[in-house]
Amino acid sequence: MSVRVGILGATGAVGQRFIQLLDDHPTFELAAVTASADSAGKTYREAAKWRVDTPIPDDVAEMEVVETSPAGIADADVDLLFSSLPSGVASEVEPAFLEAGYVVSSNSSNDRMATDVPLTIPEINPEHLQLIEVQRDERGWDGALVKNPNCSTITMVPTLAALDEFGLERVHVTTLQAVSGAGYSGVTSMEIIDNAIPHIGGEEAKMETESRKLLGEFTGAEVRLHGADVAASCNRIPTLDGHLENVFVEFADEPSPAALREAMRSFESADLPSSPDQLIKVFGDDEPDRPQPRLDRTYAGGMGIVAGGVQETATGAKYNCLAHNTIRGAAGASLLNGELLVEEGYV
Amino acid sequence: MSVRVGILGATGAVGQRFIQLLDDHPTFELAAVTASADSAGKTYREAAKWRVDTPIPDDVAEMEVVETSPAGIADADVDLLFSSLPSGVASEVEPAFLEAGYVVSSNSSNDRMATDVPLTIPEINPEHLQLIEVQRDERGWDGALVKNPNCSTITMVPTLAALDEFGLERVHVTTLQAVSGAGYSGVTSMEIIDNAIPHIGGEEAKMETESRKLLGEFTGAEVRLHGADVAASCNRIPTLDGHLENVFVEFADEPSPAALREAMRSFESADLPSSPDQLIKVFGDDEPDRPQPRLDRTYAGGMGIVAGGVQETATGAKYNCLAHNTIRGAAGASLLNGELLVEEGYV
Amino acid sequence: MSVRVGILGATGAVGQRFIQLLDDHPTFELAAVTASADSAGKTYREAAKWRVDTPIPDDVAEMEVVETSPAGIADADVDLLFSSLPSGVASEVEPAFLEAGYVVSSNSSNDRMATDVPLTIPEINPEHLQLIEVQRDERGWDGALVKNPNCSTITMVPTLAALDEFGLERVHVTTLQAVSGAGYSGVTSMEIIDNAIPHIGGEEAKMETESRKLLGEFTGAEVRLHGADVAASCNRIPTLDGHLENVFVEFADEPSPAALREAMRSFESADLPSSPDQLIKVFGDDEPDRPQPRLDRTYAGGMGIVAGGVQETATGAKYNCLAHNTIRGAAGASLLNGELLVEEGYV
Amino acid sequence: MSVRVGILGATGAVGQRFIQLLDDHPTFELAAVTASADSAGKTYREAAKWRVDTPIPDDVAEMEVVETSPAGIADADVDLLFSSLPSGVASEVEPAFLEAGYVVSSNSSNDRMATDVPLTIPEINPEHLQLIEVQRDERGWDGALVKNPNCSTITMVPTLAALDEFGLERVHVTTLQAVSGAGYSGVTSMEIIDNAIPHIGGEEAKMETESRKLLGEFTGAEVRLHGADVAASCNRIPTLDGHLENVFVEFADEPSPAALREAMRSFESADLPSSPDQLIKVFGDDEPDRPQPRLDRTYAGGMGIVAGGVQETATGAKYNCLAHNTIRGAAGASLLNGELLVEEGYV
Repeated sequence: MSVRVGILGATGAVGQRFIQLLDDHPTFELAAVTASADSAGKTYREAAKWRVDTPIPDDVAEMEVVETSPAGIADADVDLLFSSLPSGVASEVEPAFLEAGYVVSSNSSNDRMATDVPLTIPEINPEHLQLIEVQRDERGWDGALVKNPNCSTITMVPTLAALDEFGLERVHVTTLQAVSGAGYSGVTSMEIIDNAIPHIGGEEAKMETESRKLLGEFTGAEVRLHGADVAASCNRIPTLDGHLENVFVEFADEPSPAALREAMRSFESADLPSSPDQLIKVFGDDEPDRPQPRLDRTYAGGMGIVAGGVQETATGAKYNCLAHNTIRGAAGASLLNGELLVEEGYV
Repeated sequence: MSVRVGILGATGAVGQRFIQLLDDHPTFELAAVTASADSAGKTYREAAKWRVDTPIPDDVAEMEVVETSPAGIADADVDLLFSSLPSGVASEVEPAFLEAGYVVSSNSSNDRMATDVPLTIPEINPEHLQLIEVQRDERGWDGALVKNPNCSTITMVPTLAALDEFGLERVHVTTLQAVSGAGYSGVTSMEIIDNAIPHIGGEEAKMETESRKLLGEFTGAEVRLHGADVAASCNRIPTLDGHLENVFVEFADEPSPAALREAMRSFESADLPSSPDQLIKVFGDDEPDRPQPRLDRTYAGGMGIVAGGVQETATGAKYNCLAHNTIRGAAGASLLNGELLVEEGYV
Repeated sequence: MSVRVGILGATGAVGQRFIQLLDDHPTFELAAVTASADSAGKTYREAAKWRVDTPIPDDVAEMEVVETSPAGIADADVDLLFSSLPSGVASEVEPAFLEAGYVVSSNSSNDRMATDVPLTIPEINPEHLQLIEVQRDERGWDGALVKNPNCSTITMVPTLAALDEFGLERVHVTTLQAVSGAGYSGVTSMEIIDNAIPHIGGEEAKMETESRKLLGEFTGAEVRLHGADVAASCNRIPTLDGHLENVFVEFADEPSPAALREAMRSFESADLPSSPDQLIKVFGDDEPDRPQPRLDRTYAGGMGIVAGGVQETATGAKYNCLAHNTIRGAAGASLLNGELLVEEGYV
Repeated sequence: MSVRVGILGATGAVGQRFIQLLDDHPTFELAAVTASADSAGKTYREAAKWRVDTPIPDDVAEMEVVETSPAGIADADVDLLFSSLPSGVASEVEPAFLEAGYVVSSNSSNDRMATDVPLTIPEINPEHLQLIEVQRDERGWDGALVKNPNCSTITMVPTLAALDEFGLERVHVTTLQAVSGAGYSGVTSMEIIDNAIPHIGGEEAKMETESRKLLGEFTGAEVRLHGADVAASCNRIPTLDGHLENVFVEFADEPSPAALREAMRSFESADLPSSPDQLIKVFGDDEPDRPQPRLDRTYAGGMGIVAGGVQETATGAKYNCLAHNTIRGAAGASLLNGELLVEEGYV
């Protein structure tokens, strides 16, 4: 069974990761790549300034780029769209595809907190996908829109989900984020060499709200935000890929570090083509300096979460977690939601 | 009035900063530089692999290095010693100097939490210096030993001291520390290029305990640790100098961000030669991406603290702070304690 | 004697360096700062995203930015203009100022090789300034236009000038250039972290031609290019400031490394306010790993040249040289030409 | 057909690459790992601080490390040894293995220029292997010692070999070398962040002599060094892996850039398991900014050479070349020589 898919905004940094990840995908077949009007008509090779460290797949290199509109992809006969458009563009363009009946798995940040849009990590809250029924009722769409969270949120939430059994009450998290999270030209070299920047616009609010939606309960009609207090502080540092996060957690219970490690290690993954066998790899006491971005970001092909440094504190516990921000945190997240949409019969 | 001073361990990274800071000092005159036995007898230029970005002062370059022992400096007629010895060496060697009657201002980490050793930042807790009387009673020393805290602790504690009026109860702090904090060879390039390391041995415990001693109350006989809970998480990142810290604070009161900023800005500095006019520089809402290590580490010649990013959170407030780790956080901290010792009549 | 000066393109990276260098200048008084139309009317503080590591001088911060046109600066009563406009803009705008009678010392790359435009480094070829007479004859300008060379050319040419006494015949040079040479946003962090880029558009041709003009003989009517063959290869590397260059030289004579070092060390500087006492600092055999960008770029306040690693080769000799690319290589170069213009009576 | 192999010095940086490359090798089976006496008896996992970005192969992790001596490996029944010992150790230890009859493919720098030791790159000068006969005659060894060149030499020599048909006369080469070339702790972070170091001890002489031996003619009794003049200048820059080199070449003929590109592209590879299908990948005029270390170092699994930037100069031509310094430039080079030794019947 093959599913024909398209990528909206295929030439950018996340778009290139989609193409890399779709190469040799067991069920998805890339049938359309879109970009802005001035790239339409070019081959993908001409339109994209390819930056990924594997070559452009030959067949994609020669594909014709079409404009990002339902008309543009009308001939491609696709069943599922992945969107990595800038959020400003996405908020204008995505509705047109939904009205035209397309199923869209989107990495763009618009509408993530809308009450009728599922914000989903397949291993964490697949049941939220049922919000699509609410969405269709309210908006009258034939299509369906599902979002994945922000890259910094995705890195942390699987660990919080694994630990929620201990009665998660408060979270203080600090991020050390890679430059690729800002896109190819987002951080200049003069800003970041021998430096760190303790501010990423809007990022802290995303972590604080998206995490509570992801961990929230689906009632059948809506998602009730998780009750934990979450406070985030976000930094950009001179790493290329891989967001590292330091998390302080407080629980109703008093779990030991060993119990926390075990809960993360044994947290169940999903049965989807791109899900890792073990979702969260956990380093023990004997390797306190892990995870590290350069050494651990490719765990499970960049689709896994790596944790470590679990210790008690005066207020509860702390640990570190890490994920590849443009794979698990962006293109891979949308891809996985696409696989879930197929699995659940929405495609 | 001139005070003759010596540097114990003068050839290392912190020793070199001492020499840079003592050049043109208004009252201190460098009269002795010590190192291990195999450097004794060489000129300073020969013995030190000079790495500071200003040239070796000419007179220091030609000074003879002597062995780190009371005999070694016997002819130098010094009144005050600065110590930047590795803590393992310092714990062996410092007592000999104290027994010989020297006043020692030490950056080494040994004995910082000893109940009869003052751990002092002159602008924060100068009254703790009176522990010297207890120390002399207990140890029978003619000399006096004062310590400054760890570089990561120094960066944060002035801001906490400024905010303590609001009833400081809990602190969660994450550090982004520069490689120079580990000494010249402490972090290899292969470890840190395109990477971050979420572990610095012993650093978190230092921040958690030293901060409570610095903020503690001196009763006349001892220092009562401050009652706040402090939890720290420490990271090494690819910056050369300047420790950046993200701090989450919770108070008995509910101060506004504006009140927090004002409390930091108006916190009084000390009237010592190396103290900044304004101890804590605070960036406002209009510059949320400051402080940054490369842009702000030289504030007040590297002796100031720079803060910013003050905001409310779901649990209290958060802000960022920064200091130059080898100036304010090491050599400059000991130097300032030396100035306080002179001011208070211990030298 | 005070000279009122203006900066064309004052808000960019080189413009900011001009402002830093003009602060406390003994004879120049900053009287006008220009930028594009959308910045006109703002204060300098509002218009510039200040990135230099010293604060904006207070008086400059509150200056009103005017449009880059003769009308814009008409009220400022300036005697000398420094230009750091992008070359595309400069080639359009500079002629208007020259027709209006202004003397312009320009860092922009347009017209550097024009036969009636002096390309000058004051310590190397001050006599080329007399081309201004040719320029005035040919163009009918009351003003005068002088250019300084490209940053990578400036780094090398003083050393070649010092060695030309040995009969310079061939030069092969490779550069390791800092990111600041491309302007604040010229090199993205994703391009350069853990990377090097062996191409800088147009840079190699600039080095090959400008160097021969600078070393050429002024006949009274024109500059005859120096006869040496010059081949350059240019690279961008992850350094912030300071261009390092590896130079292979071949001579008619067979000078020893000692003779080469001595010729560079004893090369005469100029008697201008911003010229270093010793133009070229030379490291000897005992420090073969110098010059290095981070350790040596601030020699003589960034206005000096630093050389080292002089050795014989199978084909002649080789050495390394280094200069601060945005000080000696850009703003400082124009400033120095301005000082020469004053000295020679053109202002 | 399986060949049992051992690694001398298996725990270091190059040793780890050997292990990575031998995992899944079609014919070599790892049977012994040696290290210094204090590691002997430990498992490989315990003895090695594993730094490669793929996990330790499970079977290797549990192998017992033995001492680096013929006695140490006596029970392992190996047919071929790879050596990545420090050259000081290798010059003491390698002869013992040769006297004991082992065939050793060594990456260590000792003896590379010895007249009876083949210095070999299988695609370039496989016929030099016949020096083994001379070696056996002179030294009375049953075993055989073959060396591969230095990492910076290997990067350049395949391109020179491809271009030698045009009458190679002179070479000026500048290197931009990655920190991994100095071993795990060879370059500290404080030395190299925001910096470059224009000196690597002994490296320039290695490039100048080894390249002429590799390109030299084997007469049946000796290798006559190639007659070209070679001058090298070597730099360390802040890259992790991948040596980039800028090469200026002069020929008896006057080949066009197109002819140079074609000669490199069509240069024949070897028919060995680890040789790339196309030895030299060449970028054309349309991608003048390639090769780049981060983007191109993994070409052909790190075993290929990548060239680009071919242009005419005033003196001949120039181009850039790049190879992965710890794969093609070290462990992979020895491995390939091992494959050649098997192919040629020495094992």
